[in-house]
Amino acid sequence: MRAAVMRNRSLVVADVPRPEPGAGEVLVRTLACGICGSDLHALKHADRFVEASRRAGSVFTMDLSRDVVMGHEFCAEVVDHGPDTTKRVAVGTRVCSRPTLIRRDGPRTVGYSNDTPGGYAEYMRLTEALLLPVPNGLPTEQAALTEPMAVGLHAVAKARLEPDDAPLVIGCGPVGLAVIAALRLHGARPIVAADFSARRRELAAAMGADHVVDPAQVAPWQSWRETAVWRDASRAPALPPWIAGPALRPAVVFECVGVPGVLDQIMAPAPRGSRIVVVGVCMEPDTIYPMLGISKELNLQFVLGYTPEEFAATLGHVAEGRIPTTPLITGRVGVEGVAGAFEALASPERHAKILVEPWRA
Amino acid sequence: MRAAVMRNRSLVVADVPRPEPGAGEVLVRTLACGICGSDLHALKHADRFVEASRRAGSVFTMDLSRDVVMGHEFCAEVVDHGPDTTKRVAVGTRVCSRPTLIRRDGPRTVGYSNDTPGGYAEYMRLTEALLLPVPNGLPTEQAALTEPMAVGLHAVAKARLEPDDAPLVIGCGPVGLAVIAALRLHGARPIVAADFSARRRELAAAMGADHVVDPAQVAPWQSWRETAVWRDASRAPALPPWIAGPALRPAVVFECVGVPGVLDQIMAPAPRGSRIVVVGVCMEPDTIYPMLGISKELNLQFVLGYTPEEFAATLGHVAEGRIPTTPLITGRVGVEGVAGAFEALASPERHAKILVEPWRA
Repeated sequence: MRAAVMRNRSLVVADVPRPEPGAGEVLVRTLACGICGSDLHALKHADRFVEASRRAGSVFTMDLSRDVVMGHEFCAEVVDHGPDTTKRVAVGTRVCSRPTLIRRDGPRTVGYSNDTPGGYAEYMRLTEALLLPVPNGLPTEQAALTEPMAVGLHAVAKARLEPDDAPLVIGCGPVGLAVIAALRLHGARPIVAADFSARRRELAAAMGADHVVDPAQVAPWQSWRETAVWRDASRAPALPPWIAGPALRPAVVFECVGVPGVLDQIMAPAPRGSRIVVVGVCMEPDTIYPMLGISKELNLQFVLGYTPEEFAATLGHVAEGRIPTTPLITGRVGVEGVAGAFEALASPERHAKILVEPWRA
Repeated sequence: MRAAVMRNRSLVVADVPRPEPGAGEVLVRTLACGICGSDLHALKHADRFVEASRRAGSVFTMDLSRDVVMGHEFCAEVVDHGPDTTKRVAVGTRVCSRPTLIRRDGPRTVGYSNDTPGGYAEYMRLTEALLLPVPNGLPTEQAALTEPMAVGLHAVAKARLEPDDAPLVIGCGPVGLAVIAALRLHGARPIVAADFSARRRELAAAMGADHVVDPAQVAPWQSWRETAVWRDASRAPALPPWIAGPALRPAVVFECVGVPGVLDQIMAPAPRGSRIVVVGVCMEPDTIYPMLGISKELNLQFVLGYTPEEFAATLGHVAEGRIPTTPLITGRVGVEGVAGAFEALASPERHAKILVEPWRA
């Protein structure tokens, strides 16, 4: 089958074996698969990616001397059932699935494993038990956004928001936009979101941000401070007389950039007691100043992925329009276009989410 | 008055002006004042200390071109009342206090400020409203340990322990020992504690650690794993079949070292979902690998100090013997001995807490 393959640390188009579904697995045809920022990171920092998974104790890491077909944000169509399947999802059904292949000896990540090709190829094998049929009427390309939007839902859940918390989103790439959508769904407002790119600020507003800020013009924390005042002054904590200005609501910051140095930039001006949810996937070493965290008793919650329940709920939210997805899709390519799309995604002015449609000529 | 003074980034004995109590303040005579690891850090990394306070938004930072008298873990005796005081605490009363001088324009930290000498001098001025009389019969030197022990109580409170959490304490200097005492008081057991020093492991056991481990012999996480098994198997979460070994209770690690690299050493082998409470005060930049935090959804809670309520409660716990302090005191010096004590404290085999008694000849 035709695929965009990570080979020798670059992307090439190649013919690779069509996967055989094993016990409890189905063969699916990829209809659409989003390109994730993590894939860009994984290509650029392949060795670090593998090293980090190993250090964190992962058993099934990629062997970079062999082919890897990436792609883990997909909508697909059931083509065939493997042995020991219930066939509860009929051939021809459109499905979403968490990008996990459940095997007796452990799970493989679809799209980050040598033997489990992801959605940058014409076919994948998936675990039957994880299949979620796409609700009638939901376009395929919106269904394909279930996975990245679930990341936002999970990040907001892990933030354990209290009613008075005031959110700030740093970075409005696909991760930040998913967080904004989830914050809006949760009702935590006003949502302040920052990105250097005008196009991304536009998308942030379309996804539900109340205030968008260009960090080149105004410090994001400054913008946050202006909106985080308690509306009901009687609920604000009493401040000692030497603190100038009004009491501010508790800050919950979502780090959605994933580049070294951003954590420090967030920690230095953060108000005392801020909670920082780290959603951006930084694969490089990063320098922090623990004294900044200590002196203000900051909390860092690192997050990844989503629970099965959150993934399923997200598909429902997308289908019912409670989570918008349409503004995100800015391009569509076949497997030949994947390498170019990876390069195009480096420019935030042009793209948010590019979908790979491997059936495209 | 005689004092051990930080001058030109070293410690000298000098005569400095006796402070005048201002409105709402009392003059006290220092009876005993513990040497804190933060003072060692502040002397060694004075510029970083000041830079970090500035970046974190502190207004009253030290001017290193002027004298500073450190010392913030004290028991003192009321000598005189300044203007606008209630005199509710009589002259001659032994007192503890948070090391904070409350002024209309903001608080000063006693011991880290040019104009608010700390306990390495014969006299201090303190805010009357913060004075806590030492309960009858509590020896002065134990009362002086209220401050460092309150740090442990606060760290454990910020950990928000759940009944099944299994603690691990990394580093058994005074901070780690205070955390062990607070964990014991809280009832979170077994307590696993690690330190390279045999003397400190001995102290850890004396303070209530159930298992002490020498990281040169056994990895602390390994020791933790052996004790963190669920005793009531019916409460353990179900594990997927590919996970070898028994289910483990949630991990809460207390980082009580405060040296670059320790956070990474804790994060790399930490089980998924571990909470790391950062109590050690690292004043240097530190390198972390965010991917380790992300892939295991770790949480870092930085902590500092204590609340007024925690400080007062700690004095009560010390007085009633619910928090042991006696094993900690390993030396006593006059102001002439402070510089030597700072050097001696670098050797964990000899000392835990050295008390400065400025009245000593």
